[in-house]
Amino acid sequence: MSDITQTLSDLGIELPKAPPAVAAYVPVRVEGLLAHVSGQLPFVDGHLPLTGHVGGEVTLEQGQSLARQCAINALAALHEHAGGLENIAGVVRVGVFVACGTSFVDHPKVGNGASELFQQVFGESGRHARAAVGCPSLPLGSPVEVEVLASLRAPV
Amino acid sequence: MSDITQTLSDLGIELPKAPPAVAAYVPVRVEGLLAHVSGQLPFVDGHLPLTGHVGGEVTLEQGQSLARQCAINALAALHEHAGGLENIAGVVRVGVFVACGTSFVDHPKVGNGASELFQQVFGESGRHARAAVGCPSLPLGSPVEVEVLASLRAPV
Amino acid sequence: MSDITQTLSDLGIELPKAPPAVAAYVPVRVEGLLAHVSGQLPFVDGHLPLTGHVGGEVTLEQGQSLARQCAINALAALHEHAGGLENIAGVVRVGVFVACGTSFVDHPKVGNGASELFQQVFGESGRHARAAVGCPSLPLGSPVEVEVLASLRAPV
Repeated sequence: MSDITQTLSDLGIELPKAPPAVAAYVPVRVEGLLAHVSGQLPFVDGHLPLTGHVGGEVTLEQGQSLARQCAINALAALHEHAGGLENIAGVVRVGVFVACGTSFVDHPKVGNGASELFQQVFGESGRHARAAVGCPSLPLGSPVEVEVLASLRAPV
Repeated sequence: MSDITQTLSDLGIELPKAPPAVAAYVPVRVEGLLAHVSGQLPFVDGHLPLTGHVGGEVTLEQGQSLARQCAINALAALHEHAGGLENIAGVVRVGVFVACGTSFVDHPKVGNGASELFQQVFGESGRHARAAVGCPSLPLGSPVEVEVLASLRAPV
Repeated sequence: MSDITQTLSDLGIELPKAPPAVAAYVPVRVEGLLAHVSGQLPFVDGHLPLTGHVGGEVTLEQGQSLARQCAINALAALHEHAGGLENIAGVVRVGVFVACGTSFVDHPKVGNGASELFQQVFGESGRHARAAVGCPSLPLGSPVEVEVLASLRAPV
């Protein structure tokens, strides 16, 4: 097994088939040595495990877990559409959108569910710039959406 | 007529004069072979046709139409500030912000109003990565805002 | 003093120590000649001066001032993590997130607090593309968050 496949295996992660784009766009657009990954929802086997607001129907811990699932789905999309995970040099930027109410303050903790996974998988080169913000609602009622910009080793 | 001018004509689109920036920024910033287009509102002749929430005062169909208008305004901005539409190689990323309430779920459908236009105009190279999210409000009460990253054929 | 240090001094700005990242990410990620700055909160001496909604507990003028503080903190992060401010060629894109209610319309005015500072510091090359949107809440209850993409003179 390659290093990264071994790492995923050690983390107990089996890459799903990349979720299809929900609409008229592509899961990943590669431009030069950067891969722009569309906003990922925390689909598991084609379904959202939970819907609603983090801090409301969805607990902070669940929100973190959902953000991690978004990140796993981003990895799956990169694997299928950016030359395989071995071609990913690192993660440059992560955008974290959290469905929540007006008094929610823990957007960074939710985002860590995604950020920590990228560090675990890519090590130092997985450390990224990030913006985490709140939204009144997200597509399909998802509690979390995660967008990723990754750098590539070689063009695809 | 050039290919792209013909395409716009076939789609019944006449490019407006690019809406001016609403504030202390520029409509388009070119950096290398990428053009960053500022968040576009659906201005028509300098006015917002509608304000309010999609799924509330504004129907889904109207929201889609407004997203398409944002995309047209982005094309106008690229035409004026990125070397003409002939210099646009494709669309890399689209950010869609939808003003909506907590139970809205159709952000992707709204975004399609913009995404489908880019595909119609640029074909395969118009297919892009995308993030679509909800917001409690947008500038000037706009129901939709669309941000675009486009790739260029030549530096400007 | 260098030109840019002189400019900051003329503006009465003393760069703070860059606020640490609040969570599992880095303040700045450099990729080639672009520096991605994580979403900045308006920390002063490690504390948020205000929390809540702009247009609610926080006035528009306060919101503008907080956006300016976010921009100052972004400059501090670039100074520490992107080869010093002398290495910043310009500002490419600014994302402005405003915590606000459903009837707020002045997101662009809030964003100007950041945008105008970048123009004052970097002149013409500080003029950037921008997207300004509303959010029900932001990390730690912050009224404003500002994300920055800057261009560099030399790799770091």
